[in-house]
Amino acid sequence: MMNWDQIYAHAKEWVNEAGVKIRLSFNETLNIETKTNANDLVTNIDKEIEQFFISKIREVYSDHKIMGEEGFGDSLDNLEGIVWMIDPIDGTMNFVHQQRNFAISLGVYENGVGKIGLIYDVVHDELYHAKRGNGAYLNEKPLDVLKETTVKESIIALNATWVMENHRIDHNLMIPLVKAARGTRSYGSAALEMVFVATGRVDAYISMRLSPWDIAAGAVIIEELGGIVTNLWGDKLNFLSQDSLLTAKPGLHQSILKDYLKEGKW
Amino acid sequence: MMNWDQIYAHAKEWVNEAGVKIRLSFNETLNIETKTNANDLVTNIDKEIEQFFISKIREVYSDHKIMGEEGFGDSLDNLEGIVWMIDPIDGTMNFVHQQRNFAISLGVYENGVGKIGLIYDVVHDELYHAKRGNGAYLNEKPLDVLKETTVKESIIALNATWVMENHRIDHNLMIPLVKAARGTRSYGSAALEMVFVATGRVDAYISMRLSPWDIAAGAVIIEELGGIVTNLWGDKLNFLSQDSLLTAKPGLHQSILKDYLKEGKW
Repeated sequence: MMNWDQIYAHAKEWVNEAGVKIRLSFNETLNIETKTNANDLVTNIDKEIEQFFISKIREVYSDHKIMGEEGFGDSLDNLEGIVWMIDPIDGTMNFVHQQRNFAISLGVYENGVGKIGLIYDVVHDELYHAKRGNGAYLNEKPLDVLKETTVKESIIALNATWVMENHRIDHNLMIPLVKAARGTRSYGSAALEMVFVATGRVDAYISMRLSPWDIAAGAVIIEELGGIVTNLWGDKLNFLSQDSLLTAKPGLHQSILKDYLKEGKW
Repeated sequence: MMNWDQIYAHAKEWVNEAGVKIRLSFNETLNIETKTNANDLVTNIDKEIEQFFISKIREVYSDHKIMGEEGFGDSLDNLEGIVWMIDPIDGTMNFVHQQRNFAISLGVYENGVGKIGLIYDVVHDELYHAKRGNGAYLNEKPLDVLKETTVKESIIALNATWVMENHRIDHNLMIPLVKAARGTRSYGSAALEMVFVATGRVDAYISMRLSPWDIAAGAVIIEELGGIVTNLWGDKLNFLSQDSLLTAKPGLHQSILKDYLKEGKW
């Protein structure tokens, strides 16, 4: 029998330790490389933090698997057993340009089912966390269950790219949604944008291509509060490869999918 | 001879007092009205804070004029003398939905020239402030002078609305800019977006229609750091009526204006 309380406690402890390391790093010069494109900045810190998590997990849970953004984890072709999905710094561009608005994202899954999710806004010392069936919290404070809402009443987090011609979605599906909504926001960190859905600061978040470690933790937290998490086709997320994301309050999720995304018929 | 140090000290004192009032208000139920459109939510707090500033200013500086978002100030047809430009809560939609990501914005102008600017991020207790010729600060910490940058290296704050067909600008001018930039963000508070330019967290901020009190404080802070503040035609801002805004680091401002906005020839 898996001791999920112990795993939850370890995850919190390691995330806090990683937060301390990141705060200290602000005083060092950031040595930035360019990865596959200019938008995808990677820093030494990113790599160091991922390796920190991996060494901690391997030490205590040698039979668990690890997927990490920086690629120091395992190469997985299935989600059997316990899988830790880690983004050491989600929102790397914000980290580099802003030294804020980034987060550590850590999800723990069992046979593909999210069990634990932690998102740590390091600069503001805000840890959002959930264990399946146990509610979701901001630090020690329980978060409220998400209430139904409508497009007209909603603030939607999405990048301006998706209302311009692009390779991933017909922007003519997105424009009427943005026009009908109360407003839009864009923060540049999927993990924080999911936290914003969880706390009701935005009502929905849409993205076209995210990796498992970007969304693993947020999905656990949002679902624990009654929010809906799928891809843009309305299907369960695929945590083995990149996928699109539509996460929203109940009611709103169905409306976006049916009235605007035409239930993924594109 | 005007005692600007005294005015600066008073402005800081009153902004801090207003911040305390706003933080206390989180525990009250917000009584929200709808103003001219659904995006423009107004709360009791907004009005109360503006009236607080007005009573303080009138008490000490009875000959000064006041422009405020909520309309309790003076109706001005010129900017002669000393004019206080106040937005008690810039980012009202964020205030209502998020209880964060809003700010108090307070600018003091003399004969149309910005002398003092204060933007207070109440929730994070971050006061950005400048007195002309005296540098700009985040709390007690001096902010760095802004360095030149290029479109390719820049993060631009702007709303998704401006890359969709709209009544204010040809979106076909904006789309190439967004495609060329490193990324975009949207935070829903002009005052905070100007603070983000001042601190280099974003490199530019573009908006199509703002009021004098939205931008008065930010303009002082950004110009004090060598940033450029104009409307989208490249002209000096008009602080008597609504105007567009293009504020950016040096170099970038000229490039956006010349290479993308075609120097306002639209």
